[in-house]
Amino acid sequence: MTPRSGHRFTKIPEMTIRRLSVYTRCLLQLEEDGVKTVSSQELAERFDLNSAQVRKDLAYFGEFGVRGIGYYVAGLKAELQRILGLDREWPVVLAGFGNLGSALFHYKGFARRGFRVAAVVDDNPAKVGREVEGVPIVASRDMAREIKARGIQIAILAVPAESAQAVTDELVAAGIRAVLNFAPARIKVPRDVRLKHVDLSIELETLSFYLAKGAR
Amino acid sequence: MTPRSGHRFTKIPEMTIRRLSVYTRCLLQLEEDGVKTVSSQELAERFDLNSAQVRKDLAYFGEFGVRGIGYYVAGLKAELQRILGLDREWPVVLAGFGNLGSALFHYKGFARRGFRVAAVVDDNPAKVGREVEGVPIVASRDMAREIKARGIQIAILAVPAESAQAVTDELVAAGIRAVLNFAPARIKVPRDVRLKHVDLSIELETLSFYLAKGAR
Repeated sequence: MTPRSGHRFTKIPEMTIRRLSVYTRCLLQLEEDGVKTVSSQELAERFDLNSAQVRKDLAYFGEFGVRGIGYYVAGLKAELQRILGLDREWPVVLAGFGNLGSALFHYKGFARRGFRVAAVVDDNPAKVGREVEGVPIVASRDMAREIKARGIQIAILAVPAESAQAVTDELVAAGIRAVLNFAPARIKVPRDVRLKHVDLSIELETLSFYLAKGAR
Repeated sequence: MTPRSGHRFTKIPEMTIRRLSVYTRCLLQLEEDGVKTVSSQELAERFDLNSAQVRKDLAYFGEFGVRGIGYYVAGLKAELQRILGLDREWPVVLAGFGNLGSALFHYKGFARRGFRVAAVVDDNPAKVGREVEGVPIVASRDMAREIKARGIQIAILAVPAESAQAVTDELVAAGIRAVLNFAPARIKVPRDVRLKHVDLSIELETLSFYLAKGAR
């Protein structure tokens, strides 16, 4: 295994990054099942992936395969976790604690991957000053202080569409460097801040495509 | 514009379908802005897409471009909506009305694209028999009746991981043909049922990748 540690990862497609997340989950599953080594073909067959794609994606980051053996499951998993930044915990600020914010707060998947909500921001007077499972809910005027004090770089945005841009501007001013946006609004961030928009209806549209196709 | 109406769409990559959803949103935006025609280059520049990819994706479905003009915004939008099955309304059953289910129920994006929650399933006695915004909450023993009566083909699964497979089996037995799974569990469906798993933490992992990279 010779990871290219000095590599700058300049032109890696975002879909490759997404697939690394998927591969990490597959390797975790194999590890739980006691599997020590796996070839790209076995990985592809078991998890319904494309083996050429697996090899191509991994090749961006180094030579992980061993001839005649394949990949060492535990080693490759650890490498991918390191590449994805999952070898550490990321404190996250959750902006908005309405229906969606509350659901995202309780979503088990985030904490399991090392993303821990460390502060919640909501201006509802009934919520400010309270704690949820030990995490403080603060008003937006206090968010900069919390973000700095807790070394938070990532924000999850779950505020109404109409306040999404204003809250984002405040988050960025407070030092946030990556925003995962669940608000149904287009927002803008400076060039050096990463923005990812989650549009849950896209997932439903891939399903309706297949249903509509079947009906044609 | 010569859509290949008889085409069977056999080997279309799922990512192409996802991108059609994105293109549809871009065209809606252009239409709102009063733009009548657009070239693949203009589309790509304005919305940060890849123009070769746009042409390749659309080519699966027909010849939509007109030489010297580009695409007619309204016409292409309508074609893509038809292809995605968005020229009709899809009644949806929402299984699970806890934190996440409730947030998904109120998520504005679904209804805007024609996905209307027509029934909610939850076995909590405090919820069964109630209505939310005119939509009935029924116990799982009554779900088959509701699904059939309302002609529902799509289910959104937001139940706890431990009951995900059992509820899915009941949904499929009741006639559901596509499942969007938000439960943090692997579930299985018969071959003729479409399954899409939503893992919200993958989105965060693409962000942590870039943050971790910057810190290297």
